[in-house]
Amino acid sequence: MSSLPNSLKNISLFLERLPGIGEKTANRLAFFLLNLPEEDLKEFAENVSDLKLKTKLCKNCFNFTEKEICEICDNSERDQSIICVVETVLDLLSFEQGRIYNGVYHVLHGKIDPLNRVGPDDIKINELINRIKLSHSAKASLGTKITEVILATNPDMEGEATAVYISNKLRIKNSELRISRLAYGLPMGANLEYADYMTLKKAIEGRNKF
Amino acid sequence: MSSLPNSLKNISLFLERLPGIGEKTANRLAFFLLNLPEEDLKEFAENVSDLKLKTKLCKNCFNFTEKEICEICDNSERDQSIICVVETVLDLLSFEQGRIYNGVYHVLHGKIDPLNRVGPDDIKINELINRIKLSHSAKASLGTKITEVILATNPDMEGEATAVYISNKLRIKNSELRISRLAYGLPMGANLEYADYMTLKKAIEGRNKF
Repeated sequence: MSSLPNSLKNISLFLERLPGIGEKTANRLAFFLLNLPEEDLKEFAENVSDLKLKTKLCKNCFNFTEKEICEICDNSERDQSIICVVETVLDLLSFEQGRIYNGVYHVLHGKIDPLNRVGPDDIKINELINRIKLSHSAKASLGTKITEVILATNPDMEGEATAVYISNKLRIKNSELRISRLAYGLPMGANLEYADYMTLKKAIEGRNKF
Repeated sequence: MSSLPNSLKNISLFLERLPGIGEKTANRLAFFLLNLPEEDLKEFAENVSDLKLKTKLCKNCFNFTEKEICEICDNSERDQSIICVVETVLDLLSFEQGRIYNGVYHVLHGKIDPLNRVGPDDIKINELINRIKLSHSAKASLGTKITEVILATNPDMEGEATAVYISNKLRIKNSELRISRLAYGLPMGANLEYADYMTLKKAIEGRNKF
């Protein structure tokens, strides 16, 4: 590294802080930047510089947005009565890329994870409960009443715990609300031979009439 | 992507242009940037913006530098009479990280690759020949005379061709110059069982007295 000029070294050291990027990759990326057009670099630099100023969380669902309310919450063509609860905005994007869901979202920005000292109050669970409560209150005559919550946290230990916690909380407050969880089973195109036994167990438990 | 605000989308689209970074990784990196301190982002943006302005090629060896001559060429403790010829600055960094070589370098910035229309004149071969010629000329009483050239291009087809081309060119002009090539053989810690046969062939051909 000592043989790199500072102009490159600083960029390389910054890139090395990003997840999944080691020293060699950081160097390679910095060298690649050097070959890009000047104006593209300037534009990128401006975007990076303004990033935190411009990007906010949607007041409703905590998706990223440049306005007060994100595009999805602001879209009248989407079913505002179903909320899909996801851990991160990346999860939200996965659903959106498939165009398979026409409801709205609630981004928790994390999952309950006691080992890493993340409790229920550290993620947007209370905001979810309040959002649902508000939509059911007499005053909220303008908003759509929320009738279903799909718990789409990841199928790992912390994601499960988060889903259980939220469903318990919601059930106490609201008996008529439909609460669902994503289906477990074999992924499409999978090979039974290589499936793990937990997935197979879930696939058998959740078998459907054919 | 449509559900991302422009502030994030622009950064993500830029990152996607970098080698080895796809859409998902680009999104993940953009989100990660959002969590970094404001001042770090500003500093990085400034560095990116100034990158092309500040970074030049060393007039001597074509390493990256912010000055006219790079740190390595400018270092009087290094043996200026041996030149290690590499394809890229990344290769140079590999040698430097190991601190295994105390001579100087010459960066070709590519290799002869007819399929991709890269000929001998597209990389810094003429500059290498001139550099050596100059050090041997009567006028260059100040500089050190170059006595050895180590051809450290990669052991692939194009790297080999480049090494052969350069050695032929140099031998015509200069019969007293020592020209060497990196040794081929088994990498340290390798397992014979998994070595490819070309490597094994080279390891046998190049066997040493023990």
